[in-house]
Amino acid sequence: MNLGMPNGLTIRNSKPSDHSKIISILKDWWGGRDLTWMLPKLFFVHFNNTSFVMEKDGELIAFLIGFLSPALPKEGYIHFVGVHPDFRGFGIGKYLYQRFFKICKENNRDTIRACTSPVNKGAIEFHKKIGFEILKGNAEIDGTRITLDYNKPNDPKVLFKIRI
Amino acid sequence: MNLGMPNGLTIRNSKPSDHSKIISILKDWWGGRDLTWMLPKLFFVHFNNTSFVMEKDGELIAFLIGFLSPALPKEGYIHFVGVHPDFRGFGIGKYLYQRFFKICKENNRDTIRACTSPVNKGAIEFHKKIGFEILKGNAEIDGTRITLDYNKPNDPKVLFKIRI
Repeated sequence: MNLGMPNGLTIRNSKPSDHSKIISILKDWWGGRDLTWMLPKLFFVHFNNTSFVMEKDGELIAFLIGFLSPALPKEGYIHFVGVHPDFRGFGIGKYLYQRFFKICKENNRDTIRACTSPVNKGAIEFHKKIGFEILKGNAEIDGTRITLDYNKPNDPKVLFKIRI
Repeated sequence: MNLGMPNGLTIRNSKPSDHSKIISILKDWWGGRDLTWMLPKLFFVHFNNTSFVMEKDGELIAFLIGFLSPALPKEGYIHFVGVHPDFRGFGIGKYLYQRFFKICKENNRDTIRACTSPVNKGAIEFHKKIGFEILKGNAEIDGTRITLDYNKPNDPKVLFKIRI
């Protein structure tokens, strides 16, 4: 797998002090949606070995928060990924996913899961393009299979899985 | 460590299908506070090897969601613990903590962390009684040291640590 770094960007593992910076840009990067609840600080304390931050001249450009499942020894889980709106379309998300896949392979994980909300059409297309399949679920919205009440009542999700 | 089971209760590892049941009792057990956001389903998919459910005649009595930190190889983290209001004061919480500590020791983890909100006086007393210290933080409420803006702005937390 060629993991050449996109031009002018640096990458490093995430660290606890990244948390407040990332919380502060969430709404901007997600078109006004407030997803703060999905990123409690614990994700920046306990999963830094499999999570990354990309920067350009010290400015946050992208991040991926993922972990090797402790309970499912063949699986990795990508919890949250963001790319600065001005830097979309350059393959940065794909690069981050490939980096995470590489770590998973090195740790004998062959199945990666992720999920998104049906409203996030960009994320659905992105995962399809990478090669994820969408799990069967129990309903459908606009032709996309979804799983209802996933994290709580009235919280439909699109569930993705890929074998690497 | 004596881990005798409280009378008439059974314990098992958590599983994905426990999620919706636990979400449905959260507000009742937490005196009206809605902490649903803290328990996305991923905690019932990827951390079942270190998380437990206690039942009596098939009814949910208590649970503990914890994990061995992937990034901090000497640490365990207790994310969320609940005991049915009618079953408090019988040592069930302490029993669950000891069970988690035992797994941590078996995996060469000697430091356990947890946190709670300053408003949860019961949880603060509970952790002190178990032997947790409260981290220094950057402010104080009612004589208790707290860390401001922990998961997001205006989210003070009491941070606990214990060596086992």
